[in-house]
Amino acid sequence: MIKQITMTHTSVILTPEGRREQQEIVAIETPYKVALNDKVIGASMVLETGLEEFGAGFLFGQGYVTKPEEVKEVLVCPEGKISVYADVEEEAAPKEVIITSGCGGTGKISREMLEGAFDPLQEYTVSFTEIREFILTTLRASRLGQDTHCVHGCGLWAEERLQAFYEDVGRHNAVDKIIGAILLKKIPARGAVYTTGRLTSDMVLKCARIGIPIVLSRTAPSSLGLAIARRAGLTLAAYARPERLNVFNAPERILLEGDR
Amino acid sequence: MIKQITMTHTSVILTPEGRREQQEIVAIETPYKVALNDKVIGASMVLETGLEEFGAGFLFGQGYVTKPEEVKEVLVCPEGKISVYADVEEEAAPKEVIITSGCGGTGKISREMLEGAFDPLQEYTVSFTEIREFILTTLRASRLGQDTHCVHGCGLWAEERLQAFYEDVGRHNAVDKIIGAILLKKIPARGAVYTTGRLTSDMVLKCARIGIPIVLSRTAPSSLGLAIARRAGLTLAAYARPERLNVFNAPERILLEGDR
Repeated sequence: MIKQITMTHTSVILTPEGRREQQEIVAIETPYKVALNDKVIGASMVLETGLEEFGAGFLFGQGYVTKPEEVKEVLVCPEGKISVYADVEEEAAPKEVIITSGCGGTGKISREMLEGAFDPLQEYTVSFTEIREFILTTLRASRLGQDTHCVHGCGLWAEERLQAFYEDVGRHNAVDKIIGAILLKKIPARGAVYTTGRLTSDMVLKCARIGIPIVLSRTAPSSLGLAIARRAGLTLAAYARPERLNVFNAPERILLEGDR
Repeated sequence: MIKQITMTHTSVILTPEGRREQQEIVAIETPYKVALNDKVIGASMVLETGLEEFGAGFLFGQGYVTKPEEVKEVLVCPEGKISVYADVEEEAAPKEVIITSGCGGTGKISREMLEGAFDPLQEYTVSFTEIREFILTTLRASRLGQDTHCVHGCGLWAEERLQAFYEDVGRHNAVDKIIGAILLKKIPARGAVYTTGRLTSDMVLKCARIGIPIVLSRTAPSSLGLAIARRAGLTLAAYARPERLNVFNAPERILLEGDR
């Protein structure tokens, strides 16, 4: 089933000189419920791509699912429901929940997740040349972002190539789709993620929890995003451009020509 | 009490040529609970400015509070709790809740709010010259945005001047602070709002519900944001620049020189 993810709309361009009409492309957001073992856990507006991945990633973000082995099946009903079947106890859900920073969307996280310890991240280094290729490839893939200015993109690079790229109206949802792809064993976690969104607490937290060693953003981190990266030992780079990275934590994973 | 809303951090600038250190300014996000008549309703990461306004606006966004007359008092505890006292029934809360689009943060809205009817917006027109002044004034006010690249700004223009300007890590929170200021009768609703964030469903919905006739964004609307603007008869302008607006709906509220 092909979903329609954009629509056109005629807008009026207003300048001091006058008015004229212009065709615009608008991203379509659609409400979807997410259910775990047939119990509805939450709902979100989403861009209708990578819905299976989104369902699994959404439940991971909220602490219901923690590893790939738990996820058994994901079914998407076109009426607006993603059903995830997983070997988990419902009571595994987080207790004290914090709805996260304004741009938190689906980002309900628990105080426990925020303050708990992290498993050590896998050893992984990557050359600056590869990072450059990663950013350029991801930006080229982001057609919808260029057309609508209303979606965030998120890509995962591993084993010297772009493994997956997703877009969504929400920056959280785009990352959730990448994390869902890891949970569904479509892509490895041992790699680098590039997101066009800001790295607030919940964004960095879910990457650290799933075991992604390097997280890059086109834009900035917040104080808690940075604090989590430091606690997890995760490499966090902001304002990532093909020729320049501002590495806020653990720069040793990114190697320059003369390093080896 | 002066809150610390930024911190400095030394990052490593990585280019193909080498590494050097640089001082960065990072926005501080802090978890706050929001309580209505002493019952905790939710929590969010926020930038610690305009917390009273945020508390009231947060409860409005979720449908617990609907008009200024209901809000009696707001108390902020530095330990991370905003207590709103209001003349409302707790059962007034929305039934079926949708956590909104990825960048929805505090944006839990009900299907009822999404699909219900709107009160007619007040009559209000504004000249393009004033809109230009509004955008320029708001951009100048956004120091933290320029310093950290990690906050969204939101301003309200009415009676020929900038009435209020707030920033937050989340685009929703920044709008919630404006809406809270209206609820606390600090500023009028009959005016224009400018936000640096995207106009997804929940962003437009709360502006329409509180009765703001004109909403401008530096960036794009989503399909549902546009649909709500059309149903409410709200003027929605995207990619707003001092010399150019893309008006997606109800352009008649913005007047050019020759119009009068």
